Amino acid sequence: MSNTQQNDFSKWYIDTIQKADLMDYTPVRGCIAFKPDGFEIWEHIQDEMNRRFKETGHRNAYFPMLIPESFFQKEKDHIEGFAPELPWVTEAAGEPLEERLALRPTSETMIGHLYSDWIKSYRDLPVLINQWANVFRWEKKTLPFIRTSEFLWQEGHTAHSNEEEARHETMQMLNIYKEVVEELLAIPVYDGQKTPSERFAGAVDTFSIEAMMKDGKAVQAGTSHYLGTKFAEAFDIKYLTKENKHEFVHTTSWGTSTRLIGSVIMVHGDEQGLVLPPRVAPTQVVLIPVGPWKKNPAIMEKLDEVYAELKAKGIRVRLDDSDQSPGYKFNEWELKGVPVRIELGPRDLENSHAMLKLRDEEGKEAYALEGLVAEIENQLTAMQSRLLEKARAFRDENSHTNIETLGELTTHIATSQENNEIPGWILAGWCGDDACEEHVKQETKFTTRNIPFNPPVEKHTCINCGKDAKHTVWFARAY
Amino acid sequence: MSNTQQNDFSKWYIDTIQKADLMDYTPVRGCIAFKPDGFEIWEHIQDEMNRRFKETGHRNAYFPMLIPESFFQKEKDHIEGFAPELPWVTEAAGEPLEERLALRPTSETMIGHLYSDWIKSYRDLPVLINQWANVFRWEKKTLPFIRTSEFLWQEGHTAHSNEEEARHETMQMLNIYKEVVEELLAIPVYDGQKTPSERFAGAVDTFSIEAMMKDGKAVQAGTSHYLGTKFAEAFDIKYLTKENKHEFVHTTSWGTSTRLIGSVIMVHGDEQGLVLPPRVAPTQVVLIPVGPWKKNPAIMEKLDEVYAELKAKGIRVRLDDSDQSPGYKFNEWELKGVPVRIELGPRDLENSHAMLKLRDEEGKEAYALEGLVAEIENQLTAMQSRLLEKARAFRDENSHTNIETLGELTTHIATSQENNEIPGWILAGWCGDDACEEHVKQETKFTTRNIPFNPPVEKHTCINCGKDAKHTVWFARAY
Repeated sequence: MSNTQQNDFSKWYIDTIQKADLMDYTPVRGCIAFKPDGFEIWEHIQDEMNRRFKETGHRNAYFPMLIPESFFQKEKDHIEGFAPELPWVTEAAGEPLEERLALRPTSETMIGHLYSDWIKSYRDLPVLINQWANVFRWEKKTLPFIRTSEFLWQEGHTAHSNEEEARHETMQMLNIYKEVVEELLAIPVYDGQKTPSERFAGAVDTFSIEAMMKDGKAVQAGTSHYLGTKFAEAFDIKYLTKENKHEFVHTTSWGTSTRLIGSVIMVHGDEQGLVLPPRVAPTQVVLIPVGPWKKNPAIMEKLDEVYAELKAKGIRVRLDDSDQSPGYKFNEWELKGVPVRIELGPRDLENSHAMLKLRDEEGKEAYALEGLVAEIENQLTAMQSRLLEKARAFRDENSHTNIETLGELTTHIATSQENNEIPGWILAGWCGDDACEEHVKQETKFTTRNIPFNPPVEKHTCINCGKDAKHTVWFARAY
Repeated sequence: MSNTQQNDFSKWYIDTIQKADLMDYTPVRGCIAFKPDGFEIWEHIQDEMNRRFKETGHRNAYFPMLIPESFFQKEKDHIEGFAPELPWVTEAAGEPLEERLALRPTSETMIGHLYSDWIKSYRDLPVLINQWANVFRWEKKTLPFIRTSEFLWQEGHTAHSNEEEARHETMQMLNIYKEVVEELLAIPVYDGQKTPSERFAGAVDTFSIEAMMKDGKAVQAGTSHYLGTKFAEAFDIKYLTKENKHEFVHTTSWGTSTRLIGSVIMVHGDEQGLVLPPRVAPTQVVLIPVGPWKKNPAIMEKLDEVYAELKAKGIRVRLDDSDQSPGYKFNEWELKGVPVRIELGPRDLENSHAMLKLRDEEGKEAYALEGLVAEIENQLTAMQSRLLEKARAFRDENSHTNIETLGELTTHIATSQENNEIPGWILAGWCGDDACEEHVKQETKFTTRNIPFNPPVEKHTCINCGKDAKHTVWFARAY
């Protein structure tokens, strides 16, 4: 394979997900089919998120997908933000509907309507609910997993008696996202606050975790919103306090989506295709008999034994005894990003060892059959950490903190292009003026990603106007 | 509460699900919100189904919800069956669509289209895929959980190289449904074959499991279809055999839905409200301090200890230390159908025991604090079996096998009504003629449920025409 990842990242991405059999296109614009290996990555994310949501007192529920048009009208920022992307149901069972129904782009409105009924008194608070659902945003440019007309996500919706508690919830969920994305997907992220122009439509404050892909572009990997009393006011969600007063609740919402699947591919993949962190790999270990193994039944016996042992440990293992050649199999399983490959042939068996190949490293090594399973377990754990560290090193290398002015940024981008290097992200000062943010975007296509809670350095002058900076901000091109 | 269950079952059902806080109505016609306690029943069903699907080699995937109108036209029985109930998306992002898109009522067409691409050779078979999804059927009469415009379900879609294997799959999945419904939901079912008029639109053969509710009506609790080569022909799903020939695959599909939530309520509920089998109860045990417990900290200390022990055993336990009265709490948790209630007051503590109340039995008993957790575990296991046996006894008592003619059936129904008894199900002979089946339906509203694999007795003459019976069939009113 030629050097596609570096030269044409989009082509590399599409090739990789198709060769790894993760998805397929469909005739419905921007809607993809999630094939089993793609969907299973999502299932592992779901399991880990669900565990943490439940540990922090949240419960799952399910709300209707169809939302009456009138609901959207109630919060004006919300309708402005989402109206341009909505698909509408206008007829059902052979008759036109009296009111158009939108396919949900997010559920604040439907949930706001219901919470106004569910919440009566301080005894009913907090309400801590999450939903796993399909959502729709009919966007012009789509990219599998990253931006699709229909996608899968979870959306948490909570209601609290006061701002402090709601803000604490907003941060707690952002932290859970950071932990899951870093620990499970081995993707390092910057957590921080969105600028006003990048806020969720209808939020008081939006916080995000942002991840760098291998082409240097950013993916917003999760968001958590403090909604204040805006939706409470729009939908009349009030509660009776202990002091017998009626007050508006403070709400939050937070979400992560199947774009995490796209992110894990773009962060870890290499020229050979997919590389999956062990914790989300549908197949963690593949066992392949080599040499004249069909004449030598002891090889399959030994592999069956290793298979059973790995299975008993809860490791996701496949034994490939199909009649393809070993070379064909090696290639197939590499394309699928399987972390560990074990090869066993007659000579290996004689020497009481097996060959072990790690997906993210060159060369293979012999390991004694005695203790092989424990060795595999160790290697999986080590690879999980190694991938996170590699991604972190890559990100840090491509995070530039020495750019002070728009001129320097423009030069940096031009130089990167000339050298066939990625421009990466830049950390810069910002005065807080929307116009400065907009001007940088117009000139460079770099947008503000977030105002990181822990920037590597503090910046003191606005990259656009040169005045005092109010914030230190990550700028990058974004998906 | 008055004797509502017997006198007005529909009212009892709606009261019960609302008092148990399982769902809420929404302004979208026939669409409900699944509240956490309702949705968690579904989550337990999902876990158990997923475990068994995966054990039998199936994997989950996700397909687009929107299906182009032209796809439906390809299988004529299919479109005839579903067209009257489809909602349509006709515009998106401010523009009319070129082709209407249906909200999926089931996914055979979209999946057929994709399988024709995914399946090329015998090496690709079998394809064993399941999806968990929301589906839409815009029906006139709706009832929460049992029949809603949007509902949640799983739909398995498999493709095989030959009829025998596909038929084996169809039966295997029906058996899994039977096991899960009986073991997890404690609902006894009859498995059997649907008559042609009750087949899935587009199937060669449909098989079902049928359950009796407490009002004697039937719920089709799961279906499994052998689709032959009908969808393969409609969508051109062919594979290359080992002998280098192109042949159509044989497909199956099988589904269970959130109507199982409705079934578990209608099978086990009693005059006091919800009764949940321990294995699907969101809360299995509730601990309630009684008497002047606030003055006696040893009570909460002991309950905290029991709580921790139960939690450690994986039992879903709640400790209700709110400031409501014990009587209020007892009632609340009974309405929610919690299997076991533990009460502990000062006198109990003195005597080193706690009071244990089972949701499905009268009276409460004292059990030593020493060994209390083990006792609770035993009681939960015993209750799970007891509920299945009670439901089986109820069903058998209301399954009538002595009715030979339509006249006898009409009399039976009239007599039941006069005596305020439920008519239940009847097992009768059927000659195989659609017209006889239809006539029974017109006269009695009793429809064929299925032709059971293991009928309690064989019937020899058709209930309608008196000719020789080809089949022994369950007839009942159905949801």
